[in-house]
Amino acid sequence: MGTLLRVDMAEMKVAREENPYDEPLQGRALIGRIMKAEVNPECEPLGRNNQLIITTGPFAGTAVPCAGRLSVGCKSPLTGGIKEANSGGVLATKLGRLGISAVVVQGCPSSPGPYLLYISGGESKLVARPDLKNKRVYELASGLAGEFPGAGLALIGPAGEALMTAAGVAITDVDGVPGRYAARGGVGAVMGSKGLKAIVVDDSGGKRAQGANPQRIKAAIGRLATLIKETPQTAVVYHDYGTPAMVETMNAIGGLPTRNFSTGHFEKARDISGDVVRERIIERGGQTTHRCMPGCMIGCSNVFSLAGGDKTISPLEYETIGLLGSNCCIGDLDAIGRLNWLCNDIGIDTIEIGATIAVAMEAGLVEFGDSDGAARLIEGIANQTLLGRVLGHGAVVTGRVLGVRNVPAVKGQAMAAYEPRGVKGMGVTFATSPMGADHTAGTTARMNLVHHKAEGQVEASRQAQITAAVYDSLGMCLFVGTAVKSEWTVLTELVNGMLGIEWTVDDLREAAKSVLKRELEFNRAAGLGKAQDRLPEYFYTVENPHTGSVFDIPAEDLDRVLGEL
Amino acid sequence: MGTLLRVDMAEMKVAREENPYDEPLQGRALIGRIMKAEVNPECEPLGRNNQLIITTGPFAGTAVPCAGRLSVGCKSPLTGGIKEANSGGVLATKLGRLGISAVVVQGCPSSPGPYLLYISGGESKLVARPDLKNKRVYELASGLAGEFPGAGLALIGPAGEALMTAAGVAITDVDGVPGRYAARGGVGAVMGSKGLKAIVVDDSGGKRAQGANPQRIKAAIGRLATLIKETPQTAVVYHDYGTPAMVETMNAIGGLPTRNFSTGHFEKARDISGDVVRERIIERGGQTTHRCMPGCMIGCSNVFSLAGGDKTISPLEYETIGLLGSNCCIGDLDAIGRLNWLCNDIGIDTIEIGATIAVAMEAGLVEFGDSDGAARLIEGIANQTLLGRVLGHGAVVTGRVLGVRNVPAVKGQAMAAYEPRGVKGMGVTFATSPMGADHTAGTTARMNLVHHKAEGQVEASRQAQITAAVYDSLGMCLFVGTAVKSEWTVLTELVNGMLGIEWTVDDLREAAKSVLKRELEFNRAAGLGKAQDRLPEYFYTVENPHTGSVFDIPAEDLDRVLGEL
Repeated sequence: MGTLLRVDMAEMKVAREENPYDEPLQGRALIGRIMKAEVNPECEPLGRNNQLIITTGPFAGTAVPCAGRLSVGCKSPLTGGIKEANSGGVLATKLGRLGISAVVVQGCPSSPGPYLLYISGGESKLVARPDLKNKRVYELASGLAGEFPGAGLALIGPAGEALMTAAGVAITDVDGVPGRYAARGGVGAVMGSKGLKAIVVDDSGGKRAQGANPQRIKAAIGRLATLIKETPQTAVVYHDYGTPAMVETMNAIGGLPTRNFSTGHFEKARDISGDVVRERIIERGGQTTHRCMPGCMIGCSNVFSLAGGDKTISPLEYETIGLLGSNCCIGDLDAIGRLNWLCNDIGIDTIEIGATIAVAMEAGLVEFGDSDGAARLIEGIANQTLLGRVLGHGAVVTGRVLGVRNVPAVKGQAMAAYEPRGVKGMGVTFATSPMGADHTAGTTARMNLVHHKAEGQVEASRQAQITAAVYDSLGMCLFVGTAVKSEWTVLTELVNGMLGIEWTVDDLREAAKSVLKRELEFNRAAGLGKAQDRLPEYFYTVENPHTGSVFDIPAEDLDRVLGEL
Repeated sequence: MGTLLRVDMAEMKVAREENPYDEPLQGRALIGRIMKAEVNPECEPLGRNNQLIITTGPFAGTAVPCAGRLSVGCKSPLTGGIKEANSGGVLATKLGRLGISAVVVQGCPSSPGPYLLYISGGESKLVARPDLKNKRVYELASGLAGEFPGAGLALIGPAGEALMTAAGVAITDVDGVPGRYAARGGVGAVMGSKGLKAIVVDDSGGKRAQGANPQRIKAAIGRLATLIKETPQTAVVYHDYGTPAMVETMNAIGGLPTRNFSTGHFEKARDISGDVVRERIIERGGQTTHRCMPGCMIGCSNVFSLAGGDKTISPLEYETIGLLGSNCCIGDLDAIGRLNWLCNDIGIDTIEIGATIAVAMEAGLVEFGDSDGAARLIEGIANQTLLGRVLGHGAVVTGRVLGVRNVPAVKGQAMAAYEPRGVKGMGVTFATSPMGADHTAGTTARMNLVHHKAEGQVEASRQAQITAAVYDSLGMCLFVGTAVKSEWTVLTELVNGMLGIEWTVDDLREAAKSVLKRELEFNRAAGLGKAQDRLPEYFYTVENPHTGSVFDIPAEDLDRVLGEL
């Protein structure tokens, strides 16, 4: 199903071929399959033997709602293991309409470029574009939008070009704004190492795929739509408040990372809460509800106009508020929004950089809460000052250079916005996910658990990781899971209708487990042992002052999470 | 045999106890045994659960010649695996005369210190010494020599106090000069993390241990002495020229690291050769022959007076000449000697820093060959400038921050002075030794091999690693092995005479294999997989221009080195 576009940067060739890895699960699953077959786990992440792999789910470009997520994968230069960074935006839909389920970029160019990869239903090609060198993301997107009207874009900023390992890949949204990010794990640096500055997907002439059994798909879509509309979280909470609703929820239970993950409670949490995000948007005329991708029925995103009206951030999400906000003790949404915009413009992960700036604050480079100081530090990344080059490699390198010992990171990558002593299931996921400390890898934060107690967290994380592997491999939004809950026949009906097969829910679950196992095998072969599946030592010994708890999940239990799949 | 001095920095207690790890092999072997029993391989290297372990061989403080080497061990903050850094100096002999075979420093202090650990035949104690804070090594040694006349010292400089992971531990020699170094793997940072600035060993009242069978020992010593005197290398080459004799040998075969390990041949090698070292010393009145430790019969070290007469470097060794000299394209012994002195004074490994400065040169911070520029960079480490803090963490961090991709390091630690495409057996050892890329871990460079060809290198490295484990665990100089060759009955006679046992040569060999296996197990449990037992990718793909060879030992063969012990 679908074709694979192979891009050889050494030979400067682009060729479309049958996808030899054709199985029902695509997206994240397809990245693992291609990497297992084609990428030596021992390779240097920024070297010619790594690949940058962009995949879609099986429903990309079809009528299935909430199913246009994009997966960007590689061996991560930040974690040293496999990476799938997930993003909204229009790219997956456009690739789906062209019948392309994977773009595999291999080799490194012999001359520096940078290059633009143009993908269309007709010719696809590589073009040297030295004029784009060091262009920042918003300006780059707007220039390319003029050049390629209606096309979807995947872009890197100066951080990715400089091979900084906190660099992400920006994806344009339905408005052409490059605010969606395959942010984590340094995928932007891998794109930079391939000499690629921009990928342009022109789907003119493409068409909506119908699938093997349109009636069956239609029925399943109907059921899915009903579930989404009838579930309060997807119909109201995410729709009206989006992810920032998590700010106060997490703050209440000691799970909001604050002051370099030294506590889970921020005294100004109210000022950066979902309520205030919504109020500000209504006051200023942004959008409280926005779709991250075509075909979204939930609309958890938003469009937030910054005070002064000069800039708009689309979207302003919980993870960014947690990392660039509370974790840096910045209790002002406009200040957070400006830092978010700046990170987007430079092409760098707001999670990694939020953690990094807090480490720099702990080192005393600027005061906690000083958003102007934070902005100066981030500008240094774009300007490639020495300090900027340190920061651009993320929290672990920054902590080491600045002498800060308590760095909230796993496998070299900073934690997303859950304080793991306050929300222990997230700590279990952060420790054990083959992806490192990603929030999307297995979210327990919304589960019915006593989050600061150890009981049940291992099982919760395991189930959440399996669920995440399902949705990430279907190209579907994780929030769909909130509506679908355990009614996975909706998903199998969609898969079966699309592919003309007869998968059971068990087949789906087993395939998702295989995704995780394959990723774990890749990591082991890449030299990451079980000892890398742990949180930093201080979480085990220093209490979260708000919950009075330490992270007390024993190593044996962590090993059981994916060891007993 | 011997007692163990346990130093608890959290409780501020020092206690002498029976050594519960009493086996014939000590030194490096003892470090592995203590760490296996007491240190969680998953611990944070600079945290309270790591230990700094200082051990002697079984002959320390006896009449056995060349047997007073010191082992300093821990989980390395540079490699993430086990570390034994080996040094000459007087400390092992003095500890041996006090009957102490291991000093185990555990925990971290609650108040910053720094502290001085005073060890004697009577009371041993910890003393807060804030006056020593940030003292450089030569001044520190001279101050403490006045305070504790005749005592042996183990010291860290500002780099160790700042927890820089290229920091080593300086050991005073027979002249009281702190120029011997347990240099590698960041052992100085671990000592710093324990709050220890200085260890003072006062052996007044101590005595020479006699062993179980003095006659048997005496006979074995006689045979050993004969072998050393009758072997040209130990009697003449090492004695007259020392390790700098390797400069021209390596240069001739493309094994001398030059210009950031981009080639193995340096056009100015003659100017920094063993011959010229010797000429300069004779001209200026230093010492062409010097003992690194009491009881040495070889005297491979030297005392080199720098031009101008203001400073003396004791010793000036091959590894430093290779890393701070040819690898930085500095072809002037006085310039190299000054950099060496500066590194010693700051308390930082000349190998790691030589590799690091060359990486900085490749990044264009100073020109290759610019020794004044190199000195400025190194001074920055002591002054803790931002750049200094980057450099002080070694070549890998520096390469990442400065954007240099070709960094000659394994497991995060820079290679010693053998270009691994020119001397492939050293490359095999660099890749596979549990210690990372140490020159002492298994030296094939003096073996009868075609060094730039793959044939026989795996077996050569394996044998050399076993041999190194023997000598490191007996506290004996590796160069003794050049005289003893395969006549290991000399060694077993010494062991048997000392301990009153009846070991065969096979027993000795098997015990040495166990040392390596235990270290490898520690590394695996610390999360370092087989993929970490590799050289950087570019050595496999880019030719050494002098030899026309790449490093072509396949991964399977590397895995056989210690996998088939």
